[in-house]
Amino acid sequence: MQKDIHFTEEERRGVYRAIHARRDVRSQFLPVPDAVLARILEAAHHPPSVGFMQPWDFIVIRDLPVRQTVHRNFANASSRAAEIYEGEQRKLYEGLKLEGILQSPVNICVSSDRDRPKGRGLGRQTDPEVHLYSTVCAVQNLLLAARAESLGVGWVSILDLPQLKATLGIPPALTPVAYLCVGYVSEFRPQPDLEEKGWETRSSLCSVIHFDHWGARPEGGEK
Amino acid sequence: MQKDIHFTEEERRGVYRAIHARRDVRSQFLPVPDAVLARILEAAHHPPSVGFMQPWDFIVIRDLPVRQTVHRNFANASSRAAEIYEGEQRKLYEGLKLEGILQSPVNICVSSDRDRPKGRGLGRQTDPEVHLYSTVCAVQNLLLAARAESLGVGWVSILDLPQLKATLGIPPALTPVAYLCVGYVSEFRPQPDLEEKGWETRSSLCSVIHFDHWGARPEGGEK
Repeated sequence: MQKDIHFTEEERRGVYRAIHARRDVRSQFLPVPDAVLARILEAAHHPPSVGFMQPWDFIVIRDLPVRQTVHRNFANASSRAAEIYEGEQRKLYEGLKLEGILQSPVNICVSSDRDRPKGRGLGRQTDPEVHLYSTVCAVQNLLLAARAESLGVGWVSILDLPQLKATLGIPPALTPVAYLCVGYVSEFRPQPDLEEKGWETRSSLCSVIHFDHWGARPEGGEK
Repeated sequence: MQKDIHFTEEERRGVYRAIHARRDVRSQFLPVPDAVLARILEAAHHPPSVGFMQPWDFIVIRDLPVRQTVHRNFANASSRAAEIYEGEQRKLYEGLKLEGILQSPVNICVSSDRDRPKGRGLGRQTDPEVHLYSTVCAVQNLLLAARAESLGVGWVSILDLPQLKATLGIPPALTPVAYLCVGYVSEFRPQPDLEEKGWETRSSLCSVIHFDHWGARPEGGEK
């Protein structure tokens, strides 16, 4: 009975390792066996979802021409995005590795369907966009399962979404939530890439905690 | 070197157990030591975030009057929500346990700040709402860390959000993403509550997988 509820110390360590040693990975990918891909997709298929709505779909992309089209989409979106940065910041931006679309053997696009009938609308009346949250929980399950399998995943945010939907044939009413590049990698860096390269620092945990009411800080917290 | 990358079999099992044995829990909660609460908040503070933006805040609520106000919010929102169901479905809805706001010793509200300057806008130009996804990844980390700690968490979706913001003093520009009820529980059921009670069935993994292009199904997949 105990066993059904409690984790062993090593199992618990596995969960925290997956969370704390997960990194967004952009390069040096190697192939993925189908059995491992199936396990991470099965994990992605088991997050919480509002009303048990299960609004996600997974498009598994290995085809090179499709990935080349998505890569052109990224390249255009990224050079438009670069325009808001100047000087040193622009140089830093241009040195960042923001995708691994062609280097990784598998890409996975995760979409969300606001009209999925499953769940009979339960929990969706106060905020109709909450289906997106369920789908992001699926993505985070995939990221952590991948880390436990020593698989690297890079989440590409800089994509023109209408163009991506056209490339993949995603129905108009759906939302592409994540575009992921997946493959084995030679290392997981100790820090997030954007921290290591000096783009941004990690905020302290105290600075984002409040007690009972917004702004009531824990001891030691920043005001 | 190997050790830095790879998980032991038991650590990997821990990650999959957290994912597959996690349940949304609504009742029979017991108190949470501060050290455990700190570990799950630390886990929640380490998800991926777009441009390393870290747009989340955590309001930890133990105060009974605050929880009573949130509970009244739920009760009103839920009776409005019930109105779309009739007959058998209405009876089923009324038998569901959809929150544990007062029974659980700790509630945590997770909010998301679209204007957080961290990350310098990186990755947010193609979709300005993507900060929400980073915050949901924080929530999913918290849910899985909690499961590894044998802590139950119930995610309450049925709340009037403007009212919730007023109760907790959350600044107008922010979005409350999740309201969670946290505490030790006596069991984790084998199935999701909504599946066990006959509200909704789990879809097959094959039915949500596509290869290279929307609608291209794996063998055995539904069309």
